[in-house]
Amino acid sequence: MTYSPRSFKALSFHDARAAFLDGRDTPRAYLERCLETIAARDSVVQAWVVRNEEGARAAADAATERYRRGQTLSPLDGMPIGIKDLFETRDMPTQMGSPLYAGNHPKRDSALVQALRQSGAIVLGKLVTTELGMSTAGPTTNPFDPKRTPGGSSSGTGAAIGARMVPAAIGSHAWGSGLRPASFCANYTLKPTFGAINRGERQGSSLSHISVHAGSLEDMWRVAIEIANRAGGDAGYPGLYGPVEPPATVRPSRLILMQTAGWSDVDAATHAALDGLLEQLRGQGVKIVDRTDDPLIEAFENAVVDSSFIVRDLLSYESRMAWENLYAQNPDKLSPSLIGRLEVGRQLTPRDYRNVLAQRDNARRLHAALAPLADAIVTLSSVGPAPLMGTTGGSDGKITHTTGDPVFNAPSSILGAPAISIPLMGVGGMPVGLQLMGQPHADARLAGIARWMGENLVPVEVEG
Amino acid sequence: MTYSPRSFKALSFHDARAAFLDGRDTPRAYLERCLETIAARDSVVQAWVVRNEEGARAAADAATERYRRGQTLSPLDGMPIGIKDLFETRDMPTQMGSPLYAGNHPKRDSALVQALRQSGAIVLGKLVTTELGMSTAGPTTNPFDPKRTPGGSSSGTGAAIGARMVPAAIGSHAWGSGLRPASFCANYTLKPTFGAINRGERQGSSLSHISVHAGSLEDMWRVAIEIANRAGGDAGYPGLYGPVEPPATVRPSRLILMQTAGWSDVDAATHAALDGLLEQLRGQGVKIVDRTDDPLIEAFENAVVDSSFIVRDLLSYESRMAWENLYAQNPDKLSPSLIGRLEVGRQLTPRDYRNVLAQRDNARRLHAALAPLADAIVTLSSVGPAPLMGTTGGSDGKITHTTGDPVFNAPSSILGAPAISIPLMGVGGMPVGLQLMGQPHADARLAGIARWMGENLVPVEVEG
Repeated sequence: MTYSPRSFKALSFHDARAAFLDGRDTPRAYLERCLETIAARDSVVQAWVVRNEEGARAAADAATERYRRGQTLSPLDGMPIGIKDLFETRDMPTQMGSPLYAGNHPKRDSALVQALRQSGAIVLGKLVTTELGMSTAGPTTNPFDPKRTPGGSSSGTGAAIGARMVPAAIGSHAWGSGLRPASFCANYTLKPTFGAINRGERQGSSLSHISVHAGSLEDMWRVAIEIANRAGGDAGYPGLYGPVEPPATVRPSRLILMQTAGWSDVDAATHAALDGLLEQLRGQGVKIVDRTDDPLIEAFENAVVDSSFIVRDLLSYESRMAWENLYAQNPDKLSPSLIGRLEVGRQLTPRDYRNVLAQRDNARRLHAALAPLADAIVTLSSVGPAPLMGTTGGSDGKITHTTGDPVFNAPSSILGAPAISIPLMGVGGMPVGLQLMGQPHADARLAGIARWMGENLVPVEVEG
Repeated sequence: MTYSPRSFKALSFHDARAAFLDGRDTPRAYLERCLETIAARDSVVQAWVVRNEEGARAAADAATERYRRGQTLSPLDGMPIGIKDLFETRDMPTQMGSPLYAGNHPKRDSALVQALRQSGAIVLGKLVTTELGMSTAGPTTNPFDPKRTPGGSSSGTGAAIGARMVPAAIGSHAWGSGLRPASFCANYTLKPTFGAINRGERQGSSLSHISVHAGSLEDMWRVAIEIANRAGGDAGYPGLYGPVEPPATVRPSRLILMQTAGWSDVDAATHAALDGLLEQLRGQGVKIVDRTDDPLIEAFENAVVDSSFIVRDLLSYESRMAWENLYAQNPDKLSPSLIGRLEVGRQLTPRDYRNVLAQRDNARRLHAALAPLADAIVTLSSVGPAPLMGTTGGSDGKITHTTGDPVFNAPSSILGAPAISIPLMGVGGMPVGLQLMGQPHADARLAGIARWMGENLVPVEVEG
């Protein structure tokens, strides 16, 4: 089960469609293979909360029939997909990893779920999230080592991709909830520009984003753009810009290496793996610059070094009224960790919140100032491979992280900038992702750079 | 029942507190007087969907006890208040004027309701809204003439203030839902800067605002600021700026008269009433300028003339996925009017939406350009007094308005600018409001100008 970035072959869908079209394969058979993998592995991985297998089989049969008639709905037609259990699905409960939502079943589809169904994708089931997408970990284990965390809060999402159960899955990201599981579970993941993919009923946060996880860059992009072209972005935002086809490769000429607050926490092996990739980039003529090369980069680094504290305060302040309702219903059903976050929110005043918003605005201006300097920012997607389950760390004030440290993920969260995690490293037999970050609305260009990297870099493997 | 702006005395709370503090009166007695008015009038006005009178009496007794001990929670302590039935209340259902939400009862308080309870206000009941805050009118009648509409969608909110049932009430505003009922029912109403008062669970629109309605400017401001200081603004927005005390009067020196698309629809009597107020302003040394005086004002007028079409498209696009869920549940329980709006949304693409957002951004830039020219914008809050029930008008594409024309309200909706309606006119025995609009975040200054007008202008009364 040990991970090697050179030999691991994730599940993909985009390359299966030719066989559907000429009748050698069918969406129903593809789904059955997914279900076999799930049956073989989910007792250990525990990625799923619930599945509607009967509904999925019926949808797969309908897709099979559409391929037979040559009348498919979109490039996603027949794709089995999993949904993080924060988003509403009319045919399955939405329990959010909390006993306070046990059995909760609104008969609605979240906007992105509606869009997926319209595109012909098969909504197979709900994937484990940590408690309310925040604190306490669920049962999911890392698909490459069951003693390790899959990351969170999109735990089941990341793990389902790493375990080859589905070719694509939906997560979300406010602090590190999408990019960190992507790093730990060898996903291709897009955390788009803030507001670019419709969050449906979950628009009460100025930080959260839909994250799209897949085994391949092609499927990642197709899922993102097919959702966005149907459901749009959040209210007031222009939505995801880009082509329907996966963006063509973009060869970067300059990249900024972002160190941020996590740099000193990175272990030697992960540093070595990253260095191996940076060396290859330099060898291909890509100039790598960092904070020592330009005072604008240094100013940017200084503005994002407190990203985790900015996220902590924004999240706690923006969520506290919703959490107060849950606390009033039954305080015993909120974890101590979540109550700690609520307590942070209770202490913040409107003036405090405005001050944090101003810090965020400042970081965004300094990020915008980097646009002419390089094609993108490059860094790690996590401080290293997934830690053992039960490890706590990254303590920021009253908050501890039980699914790994989000320190490398917080900058793109506060910047609202698109970020992509690419599974290009193996450290001690576990995955670690390379992170690319771009300017807002440059999601497609960033995907083009990620595609170029996937095609032109040799994944790096180092001992742990 | 005929309205005279000179003799009508709305219910107020701020001036009742002295008697609570010295024991001549109590919040419980105040509440009982409200309940007597409701009992006398609501069979005709029909402002309320449901009330929790038992809970209100208990809350009033607790407030009475706090006044007795001299330990009040805020200037709102003991204030009976009604809540538009779009916002969740843990002790009452939230049915949104739609059979699709009949009996809907989440056991949660919306953020603003939490804040009101924390401030000691008495959440008395839920006020009628049109269908989903949009289309088909509810049963509420105008408190000054039961054959006329109270306006909508905050129908019960506007009517409850006009009928002196409560001193303050919460509405909402996306097109004209707050300012129009204010005009028709003689409310003081603040539609704040976009995002300035936390919309709680209802953040899926880039247009909707909480509106605060009261019988006096003082109560209007106090309710707004007490909510905002506890619940903050929407996620990502800095919230309402201003003092805890009602802002001191601000004497304007220059005002821009905004004509917008509705100018030619204004009847002669309403024009005469507005002219009466403008004459008084000029007599007090206030310079009134309009589109003929400055090309910047002309450019602004041209940018907002299509506000109603901009609102129509934004609302329909942003709401369509939520409406699709309801349509899937039971299309027969959506009115033809709402299905018409859904149809508008279905026809819009992400590119169309981006184009409308760009039009809105342009209007906002042209509004910002007016800041140095004047202290505020002045116009009507409606094209005239409330029309007869069943009158349809203001047809924009597939949408007809059954609760009056929002043409004078759409500009502040798209601009996200604060607006205040002041009950300063009577036309044919019915109220018409004067509207003030300011720059974003200048809510408190605008309230100061409104206060100056309330204190320095003689209300104008004309024959219908």
